[in-house]
Amino acid sequence: MTTIRRPRAIIFDTFGSVVDWRTSLIDDLTAFGKSRGINADWTALVDAWRAAYVPSMQRVEKGELPWQTLDELHRTSLNNIVADMGITGLTEADLTHINLGWHRLKPWKDSVAGLTRLKSKYIIAPLSNGTVALLTNMAKGAGLPWDMIFGSDLFHHFKPAPETYLGAARLLGLPPSDVMMAAAHNYDLKIAGSLGLMTAFFARPTEYGPEQKYDLEPRGEWDFIARDIEDLASQLGV
Amino acid sequence: MTTIRRPRAIIFDTFGSVVDWRTSLIDDLTAFGKSRGINADWTALVDAWRAAYVPSMQRVEKGELPWQTLDELHRTSLNNIVADMGITGLTEADLTHINLGWHRLKPWKDSVAGLTRLKSKYIIAPLSNGTVALLTNMAKGAGLPWDMIFGSDLFHHFKPAPETYLGAARLLGLPPSDVMMAAAHNYDLKIAGSLGLMTAFFARPTEYGPEQKYDLEPRGEWDFIARDIEDLASQLGV
Repeated sequence: MTTIRRPRAIIFDTFGSVVDWRTSLIDDLTAFGKSRGINADWTALVDAWRAAYVPSMQRVEKGELPWQTLDELHRTSLNNIVADMGITGLTEADLTHINLGWHRLKPWKDSVAGLTRLKSKYIIAPLSNGTVALLTNMAKGAGLPWDMIFGSDLFHHFKPAPETYLGAARLLGLPPSDVMMAAAHNYDLKIAGSLGLMTAFFARPTEYGPEQKYDLEPRGEWDFIARDIEDLASQLGV
Repeated sequence: MTTIRRPRAIIFDTFGSVVDWRTSLIDDLTAFGKSRGINADWTALVDAWRAAYVPSMQRVEKGELPWQTLDELHRTSLNNIVADMGITGLTEADLTHINLGWHRLKPWKDSVAGLTRLKSKYIIAPLSNGTVALLTNMAKGAGLPWDMIFGSDLFHHFKPAPETYLGAARLLGLPPSDVMMAAAHNYDLKIAGSLGLMTAFFARPTEYGPEQKYDLEPRGEWDFIARDIEDLASQLGV
């Protein structure tokens, strides 16, 4: 009988894996637009905003932009998208409020229950491109019971830079092989696995909306493949 | 009527303020010595170890030693004390186990209940000279419900270096005036207050044992003076 190896700590991708950024932001912006009497295609804004996310971080990692937080990158992208879409009437306070929408994201329905179960036996933490402040605010609002929070501002690097995965393991005082990266994104697990971390995949087939084409299935030899975070907890014996 | 100003986040000194390091270590070491058949004056060892704590950190802050973690400083001090006291029979594994006693400290009786109440409305975190790993392990063992953990390894500085207090506020995305330092040590609050943080004091009159001479009373114009963490929660309306 083979013994299943188990991690000491589990670090979670957050946007898309733990929280449903797209539905949260569309709902948040639609309600906000209504309250402010501003009409716009908020769904299109959210999709354009998310499309700008990875390229903006890549510019920092390539050294084309100095280190800055995800909030700052989001704000630059938001300004551009609002201008491109010709949305008018948004004040500086409105834009600040909209930008902080990423601090108010809501969890998938299994996230809080699954994380609470996992916390009973494992150290659990996000490893996210958001800041400590963003992730702390999100956890307070969404009820995410993290033991520790690994924001990108602790490392001055964005995933998939190795400094983030290895930095989390170092701060936990654990070898990478005792830390498991859990995510709904195969690329995240591919890098984590190549650095010696354990890996767990669960799909979020509507993260990008009804037309999602990527990450519908595991694409690698991951240590655990689960339906969701509750199922991951069951597979890990809690 | 004066409105009482309240913080957004409360950061806690940990050793002595939240956990009872002296009783915890004496109990831990006494049980360990018994199990290993090694006789020593464990209480004297613990008091000597704690006496070496502040000077060892000061050597790092003065640049006499390179940056290193509190675990490493503790281990050097432990080696010296064991030699000075003539304790024999401790293996490398024993010394590693003893050194990790600082990861296993137990809370004062009001700590978990008080922190749990405060967490319902405020962001709560330790700001400690321990590492993230030490504080995470301590929180798991003691049931401390932190939102975030500020270990000294995030800043490469030990308190009372300003980089620690201001670094915690910066990572929380808050101005120092929205962050409150809570401690049983007047010196900690003096520095925090001088940097613009709010301050809360509660005494731990037996932290250093029955002969404690310091920090029996507040010695400053602190924003809140409480009996313990539960009383602080009451004063903060939770």
